Amino acid sequence: MFERVALIGVGLIGSSISLAIRKHDLAQNIVGHTKSSESTRLALELGLADKMYPSPEEAVENADLVILCTPVGTFETIARKIGPKLKQGSILTDVGSVKRFVIDKVVGHIPDNVHFIPSHPLAGTEFSGPESGFAELFENRWCLMTPLKGTDPDKITELSNFWQTLGSKVELMDPNHHDTVLAVTSHVPHLIAYTMVGTADHLHRIRNSEVIQYSAAGFRDFTRIAASDPTMWRDVFLSNKEATLDILGRFTEELFALQRLIRTENGPELFDYFHKTRAIRQGIIEAGQDTASPDFGRSTSTISKTRGKSQEP
Amino acid sequence: MFERVALIGVGLIGSSISLAIRKHDLAQNIVGHTKSSESTRLALELGLADKMYPSPEEAVENADLVILCTPVGTFETIARKIGPKLKQGSILTDVGSVKRFVIDKVVGHIPDNVHFIPSHPLAGTEFSGPESGFAELFENRWCLMTPLKGTDPDKITELSNFWQTLGSKVELMDPNHHDTVLAVTSHVPHLIAYTMVGTADHLHRIRNSEVIQYSAAGFRDFTRIAASDPTMWRDVFLSNKEATLDILGRFTEELFALQRLIRTENGPELFDYFHKTRAIRQGIIEAGQDTASPDFGRSTSTISKTRGKSQEP
Repeated sequence: MFERVALIGVGLIGSSISLAIRKHDLAQNIVGHTKSSESTRLALELGLADKMYPSPEEAVENADLVILCTPVGTFETIARKIGPKLKQGSILTDVGSVKRFVIDKVVGHIPDNVHFIPSHPLAGTEFSGPESGFAELFENRWCLMTPLKGTDPDKITELSNFWQTLGSKVELMDPNHHDTVLAVTSHVPHLIAYTMVGTADHLHRIRNSEVIQYSAAGFRDFTRIAASDPTMWRDVFLSNKEATLDILGRFTEELFALQRLIRTENGPELFDYFHKTRAIRQGIIEAGQDTASPDFGRSTSTISKTRGKSQEP
Repeated sequence: MFERVALIGVGLIGSSISLAIRKHDLAQNIVGHTKSSESTRLALELGLADKMYPSPEEAVENADLVILCTPVGTFETIARKIGPKLKQGSILTDVGSVKRFVIDKVVGHIPDNVHFIPSHPLAGTEFSGPESGFAELFENRWCLMTPLKGTDPDKITELSNFWQTLGSKVELMDPNHHDTVLAVTSHVPHLIAYTMVGTADHLHRIRNSEVIQYSAAGFRDFTRIAASDPTMWRDVFLSNKEATLDILGRFTEELFALQRLIRTENGPELFDYFHKTRAIRQGIIEAGQDTASPDFGRSTSTISKTRGKSQEP
């Protein structure tokens, strides 16, 4: 599909893309660049790249597809460096979790004869680094592409086919709308999880060991989210500031309303609220974005009966 | 171990206790009561009880162990009814998620010659009802017991052995301390998850189908928590009001501090905050309360490499 693919960054996403390209035989050559010498060594050792270059501008030379897989805060500097070296007619994409900011920072540095098409594969785990990648990461996950006006439709199709071959379902979206949708489905939930874990850490009346031991009762799901890569998430919040603060404001308003229902002991309204949220969960399972196994299937090896249906006791 | 066990309520916890008792052969007879005629029918059909009684007071007669497995809001009424019928020398326990409230509501109705020992197995899934139970629910999970002063130590040991045979690790705790610990590890995280799911539901700029489709990016973990039984959770918040509001106040304070870091674009402090929360996650995995598999092992069937370590990219 491509003669030469250049990966800038070989963390969880970059390394998974490499393994998926190999698995589906989508490129003759994979080259890369990462700032860290340890990650460079690992990338070569794990066969993630045929060659690693000391600078991004060297890595992108002659590449037909260049993918930015570093935190979005680094994109402007990288775009400035690689812009003049990008191959004529090549495709440049990225995997950043925000899209308006990325477009604003990158587009000015890209020559007219290069096709810059922003992407966002909605895939990840709480792990990071070159060793955390696996070829199946993108399977059955969405990849949102936010092409600029005037982009060659054939090139959009080419990149879309690439993501689909990796197993993703592709959808095109306006970049600003993308940032609002992601603020709701990802950015604010992550911020809240970080906050809850931080709140627990600051409580001196109860021991950290107690929080940890008794975490199965809900808290541990937050800790998984809050264990995600800190550099990436710092950049996400700084680069999607407005949508994050907007959704956060609505969340706080809603939380205060629920807090008031508890303070005033309004049982019927609490029940109605908790009842409604079940329907959304059911929708997610029906949309195939999660397992219906109890407890995320954590204990499928021991759970003999998983036929539970959501119903009143 | 017991001649006759009476289960009041046969939802997720009650049905799991029944199946676990059968599996480990801990009782000659299991009897029960539930208000719902549909649940009564299911309990008999699934073999959860040898006999179901139309009233709790009939169910507890001659039982050596009585376990209250209904939402905590029902306990006072049930205690008043069963108190006079409880067998002399029998053990009465419960599985409620709060303990001070339960003690306050129940203890006055229990005769002196009955051993009332509150319990709280920290186990559950997002499902409810008689069909959702499974015998392994309590395996490797904590069960917190909050015995009152003056309780016969032999009876505490007897009940502790019961939970341990079901696979639980038992710890004794002061009831007020229990309620604070659970507010942090369970009650407030649930409230926040409900709030986030509710916030998404109210946003009219983005379609519900979008929220659902793109939920894998963090939101779906919240929806699992927010899909839990609404009656149970209404009762938890009303009966652990003070600790919930206290922890919620701290959470809000913390959230505002993080919101300010975003508004003022303070990258270094955001990074430090997100970095610290990783350590807590690691502690939970080391304590054996969760899997280290990426993404909770959701896709273990397709993930070929799970050797990812938490590290910087």
